[in-house]
Amino acid sequence: MELSALLTSAGINTAICTILLSLYSILRKQPSNVSVYFGRRLASGRYRQKDPFSLERFVPSPSWILKAWETTEEELLTIGGLDAVAFLRIIVFSIRIFSISAVVCCFIVLPVNYYGKMIHHQHIPRESLEAFTILNVPEGSKWLWCHCLALYIITCAACILLYLEYKSIAKMRLDHIDGSPPKPSHFTVLVRAIPWNPDESYSDSVEKFFTDYHASGYLSHQMVQRSGTVQKLMSDAEKMCRIFKAATGEHSCRQGLMRCGFCGGPPNSFKILSSEPDSVRGKSLGDLDLARRKECAAAFVFFKTRYAAVVASQVLQSSNPMSWVTDMAPDPHDVYWSNLWIPYGQLWIRKIATLMAAIAFMLVFLIPVTVVQGLTQLEQLQQTFPFLRGILKKKYFSQLVTGYLPSVILILAFYAVPPTMMLFSAAEGCISRSGRKKSACCKVLYFTIWNVFFVNVFTGSVIRQLRVFSSVKDIPAQLANAIPLQTSFFMTYVLSSGWASLSCEVMQLFPLLCNVIKKWILRIKDDSPEGTMSFPYHTEMPRVLLFGFLGFTCSILVPLMLPFLLVYFVLAYFVYRNQILNVYVSKYESGGQFWPIVHNTTIFSLVFMQVIALGVFGLRKSPVASGFTIPLFIGTLLFYEYCRQRFLPIFRNHAAEILIKMDRRDEQSGKMEEIYQQLRSAYTHTETCNDSRRSEISNHHEKADSIPDPEHVKPGLIHPTLGRVPVSGIRDVIAWLSLLFTFQGKNLAK
Amino acid sequence: MELSALLTSAGINTAICTILLSLYSILRKQPSNVSVYFGRRLASGRYRQKDPFSLERFVPSPSWILKAWETTEEELLTIGGLDAVAFLRIIVFSIRIFSISAVVCCFIVLPVNYYGKMIHHQHIPRESLEAFTILNVPEGSKWLWCHCLALYIITCAACILLYLEYKSIAKMRLDHIDGSPPKPSHFTVLVRAIPWNPDESYSDSVEKFFTDYHASGYLSHQMVQRSGTVQKLMSDAEKMCRIFKAATGEHSCRQGLMRCGFCGGPPNSFKILSSEPDSVRGKSLGDLDLARRKECAAAFVFFKTRYAAVVASQVLQSSNPMSWVTDMAPDPHDVYWSNLWIPYGQLWIRKIATLMAAIAFMLVFLIPVTVVQGLTQLEQLQQTFPFLRGILKKKYFSQLVTGYLPSVILILAFYAVPPTMMLFSAAEGCISRSGRKKSACCKVLYFTIWNVFFVNVFTGSVIRQLRVFSSVKDIPAQLANAIPLQTSFFMTYVLSSGWASLSCEVMQLFPLLCNVIKKWILRIKDDSPEGTMSFPYHTEMPRVLLFGFLGFTCSILVPLMLPFLLVYFVLAYFVYRNQILNVYVSKYESGGQFWPIVHNTTIFSLVFMQVIALGVFGLRKSPVASGFTIPLFIGTLLFYEYCRQRFLPIFRNHAAEILIKMDRRDEQSGKMEEIYQQLRSAYTHTETCNDSRRSEISNHHEKADSIPDPEHVKPGLIHPTLGRVPVSGIRDVIAWLSLLFTFQGKNLAK
Repeated sequence: MELSALLTSAGINTAICTILLSLYSILRKQPSNVSVYFGRRLASGRYRQKDPFSLERFVPSPSWILKAWETTEEELLTIGGLDAVAFLRIIVFSIRIFSISAVVCCFIVLPVNYYGKMIHHQHIPRESLEAFTILNVPEGSKWLWCHCLALYIITCAACILLYLEYKSIAKMRLDHIDGSPPKPSHFTVLVRAIPWNPDESYSDSVEKFFTDYHASGYLSHQMVQRSGTVQKLMSDAEKMCRIFKAATGEHSCRQGLMRCGFCGGPPNSFKILSSEPDSVRGKSLGDLDLARRKECAAAFVFFKTRYAAVVASQVLQSSNPMSWVTDMAPDPHDVYWSNLWIPYGQLWIRKIATLMAAIAFMLVFLIPVTVVQGLTQLEQLQQTFPFLRGILKKKYFSQLVTGYLPSVILILAFYAVPPTMMLFSAAEGCISRSGRKKSACCKVLYFTIWNVFFVNVFTGSVIRQLRVFSSVKDIPAQLANAIPLQTSFFMTYVLSSGWASLSCEVMQLFPLLCNVIKKWILRIKDDSPEGTMSFPYHTEMPRVLLFGFLGFTCSILVPLMLPFLLVYFVLAYFVYRNQILNVYVSKYESGGQFWPIVHNTTIFSLVFMQVIALGVFGLRKSPVASGFTIPLFIGTLLFYEYCRQRFLPIFRNHAAEILIKMDRRDEQSGKMEEIYQQLRSAYTHTETCNDSRRSEISNHHEKADSIPDPEHVKPGLIHPTLGRVPVSGIRDVIAWLSLLFTFQGKNLAK
Repeated sequence: MELSALLTSAGINTAICTILLSLYSILRKQPSNVSVYFGRRLASGRYRQKDPFSLERFVPSPSWILKAWETTEEELLTIGGLDAVAFLRIIVFSIRIFSISAVVCCFIVLPVNYYGKMIHHQHIPRESLEAFTILNVPEGSKWLWCHCLALYIITCAACILLYLEYKSIAKMRLDHIDGSPPKPSHFTVLVRAIPWNPDESYSDSVEKFFTDYHASGYLSHQMVQRSGTVQKLMSDAEKMCRIFKAATGEHSCRQGLMRCGFCGGPPNSFKILSSEPDSVRGKSLGDLDLARRKECAAAFVFFKTRYAAVVASQVLQSSNPMSWVTDMAPDPHDVYWSNLWIPYGQLWIRKIATLMAAIAFMLVFLIPVTVVQGLTQLEQLQQTFPFLRGILKKKYFSQLVTGYLPSVILILAFYAVPPTMMLFSAAEGCISRSGRKKSACCKVLYFTIWNVFFVNVFTGSVIRQLRVFSSVKDIPAQLANAIPLQTSFFMTYVLSSGWASLSCEVMQLFPLLCNVIKKWILRIKDDSPEGTMSFPYHTEMPRVLLFGFLGFTCSILVPLMLPFLLVYFVLAYFVYRNQILNVYVSKYESGGQFWPIVHNTTIFSLVFMQVIALGVFGLRKSPVASGFTIPLFIGTLLFYEYCRQRFLPIFRNHAAEILIKMDRRDEQSGKMEEIYQQLRSAYTHTETCNDSRRSEISNHHEKADSIPDPEHVKPGLIHPTLGRVPVSGIRDVIAWLSLLFTFQGKNLAK
């Protein structure tokens, strides 16, 4: 790729970004889009309707950027929780380290690269990008110490910054636990694998076990109950009938005799239920439920103090490690109910199976990536599709194809990844939503780094990629050779995937489309905040980390990339702050547990950068520079190990010291009785089983993260009050389709 | 190697074994060797002196084999502890699985191999061993399903047996904990990394912390104190003076004015101390000690119940995971005192450093192994040393060189390994002797498998061995090709290292030599049991596991090896039972914690066998057999994961259930007060610091495992009562040398 092609790509992307951001600043002022752009404010009830008609509404303005800039970290912590702050810290860290890298690399490394003597220089606009890379430095050059120096500066700065961030987030996490209001999850332990005893129920077993062995701390317990398959079918049928009825417009036909084809019962049975007061209905269904429900071998056990709960969760309970397995319970909102009934003995095999499935998925995904890679080599494309030869000869078009198209295809293909990984993580058996998201985040991260980076670096056919595995020793040298050759791809990837994805993120294209359909075709005027989503960490975090990884690996080889990357991170800083403030609702959080993933990935990036540098110095025959890289490498690994020892346990377990202090504080202020009262009703899963209206509420909770990719999400397509709205004709079809779609989505997410 | 060479080797080894075992059965009856062969019995005071003059004393008899056979597992458990029983279980397991393998392989695989058509058959005595290996099976043979079937039978049998063994040893461990008399270690937690507070002593900090956060369970505590370097020098000098005095024969010169050149003080200062009663002496030295000693940031904290101790040890104490680190304390005899004062912050870096050092040692060790390997190729040897050509042409000599010499050299070189690994494990910072031995056991195991197996399989120069790493994919095929070629080496290794090492073990050559020197040169008649050793698990367990590994990997490729291996295991069964009954004292034990290592190694062996089989089937072009091996491979890994989930936690932590039951039992029987009394004096490390007589006792404890290899051990060379014995002339020199030797050994072991 030439410099001019790069500039074309940059130009296109800057234009798209500017247009989209301006469009956003207009669209967000339209009252009809409130539910798309101010979901969080609507949900928290703080949204004030503005004057609907003013000129200001149609003029783009940077006010949202100012607002995002002005918000302090404390405000963000209250609004988005610790996870959001930790996420923004990744971006701040990236801005800091890549500012340093950009300065170091542009003033030390770039001139050395450019004034190397390997490539014949062209007139600047037609200058090949490779002239700015390490490919231009000749063998045995004396200037390689510049690269080594840059390596030292970047690594040391990154380690210092990482340490400070880890320390500050660990402190935040501790303060967050310490300062939080009494949480039911701190008093509760989830017990699984309760042994089956034919003489007594699970509930009796639990009571016996805990009064026997944890007499001083045990308060009470609550069994996890599973709705049987029959009940699930019944409730699904019930739901469908209601919508069907609503669609046919028989909204108030009390005495109708039409039989519902799906559930077989007379339709008025539902009508009576829905027309009678909630209390009566709840009772009659409750009796039925008792018969239908099944007790599982899992229970929430409540303790009198936080310390007692943490002790019960951390100590090995039984002489059979596969029974009486205890873990701290997740927050009530965070519980992933449908996984609680999975027999504990299945979990290990589920984990292995999903791991295998994820790896298989990763390998199958090679195919679209290989196709994409083919596009960057125009000659290949022309050979494969001879009819394209005419079009591709046009200069502008060829620049578009090489500079832009591959990334777009890759991005589109990647939209299938996060939902799939969420599916795998759900099947794995996580007991909390945040745990599921964390697990999906790791999977997407490995996937992204593998498929975007490694597969693209080792270009060519699938067979050649597999052959790479067979030679371990040459990998650093191969990487050092291959990465600069892929400069053009990575550059355009940062420009297209990075910049454009941020614009799409802020625009919320898919929810916007849904909103348009809802408002202008289905003519629903309701702005109730049912469609709000929680922050999609599992898509955004891997993306940000991937760019960090690209930045580190390319910093020395392709320093020209750093300014573009820096623009990406600065833009990301404003966009994500804005989204956290306005769009996403934090329904549950992991308390910063994402940070160790970030830390590990960054250390991996650093080590990888050093390995590549070793390869470079080896290829360029500079033993001194190689020699100096090895201590840096060892030092980085020691730093990693130290941080693991120093900070990781804080993210794994609760410290006794803090919990005991909290317990004392509550005891002294006499709050304990009140907390016990709350505890008894905290963990109820009545929503999805008991009555259909509550089911809908929980449905939206579910939807918020079961269809997690914001660009993929379909909120509002099926409206909770759809049943009450008279719809007909084409709308019926849409309603039906969306119903089926949602059911399928729900089943997948389970 | 030809069959005749193998038989020569087998003949030599059988003869040596028979002679050594007969010699043993005579030597053990000599009263002068009691301290060598009946160390345990002497130590436990159960040895009855027999009639010293009878003809029976000079006739070899198999009575010891009968005795070893008759002893039940319960007796062994009381005598040798759980570790000894677990160790013997490895041998029983090996006998069982290799009996099955031998039957399967000799009746199914061996005929298929022999009647293959690749190698021209010779007259039986001159038949090449390769005719019995898989090398003789032609490509695409239809009979490869026999090998696949054998693989299935062996793997399934091994998994079933392994599961039963793991289950039974886990049960034994639980029963062992449950049934043990009250142990101080169950009530005690070792706290390290106590934060430094300038306003109060460490002791006050500990008391404050535990009365604050563990008020209900905390009983008392005891600081770990470190003897300063000055004190160590003083006590060393003191010891040397005493021996020097004794050597010069001035045994009762009370008023002598001769000045001791080493410590500068008048010699009578020591004399006065040693002649005064212990109580007075202890007091005067005690005052000095208080000034000399230094409090460390570590303490033993005693709890009122076992459950409280286990809770304190398993829960994360502080919000800084690098301070207030708690672990269950080892048994008082098991504590490795000199490691307790290591600052906790150093431990992680010590672990990494010793790991690196162990790996470096492993690589340097390649050199003698490469030399050894050269010996099996006679032509090479003749080229290197042309003057040997005449000798090597003699047939018998060449058979001796190829069949026997390589193994002997390898064995001798291996004697340096266990002490080195013990040194590394001590430097690692283990807090218990059993932990140190376990860690050394792992290191020796990796070392042995790497250096005996892999390096020997990939014969040739060091450079070729390194090149092997670079091609991962071809490894199975390379192994499948290389292992049968090394048949001769492995056969002779089993014969020489295996059989002969057992004879050496039972003979206790080095202690015997020491005993001879002591009795016949130094003329010390004392039979006190000071030189008894604890069982050297870290040398014997890797050896036994290595033979198991060889057995699995060779079972299908070289079935002829299995009968020899079976003989080894049967012999080992009797020898080790005898040694546990008579020779080794169990001063401390880990409670079966060695077993997970055994399990993992066996699973590794199985998986490795399957990988090699895949290579074989690939080379022989049998896709069906390859296809059938893959499910077996996956099944084995799943089995491993299941066992890890099911049994491993039992070996890592104590279960609350059991400890609470034990606590209740003791509370009901009113034993608790008595236990608390014992607790206060249980962890005293006065021996090595306070007075020199106690120091000697601890010295022998130390010696028992600081010079751990039984063939290497130097017990009795320096006698504890040496100072009191009038020695002169040449004996002085010997005493001095041995003294220096022991000091050096002690320093190394620390």
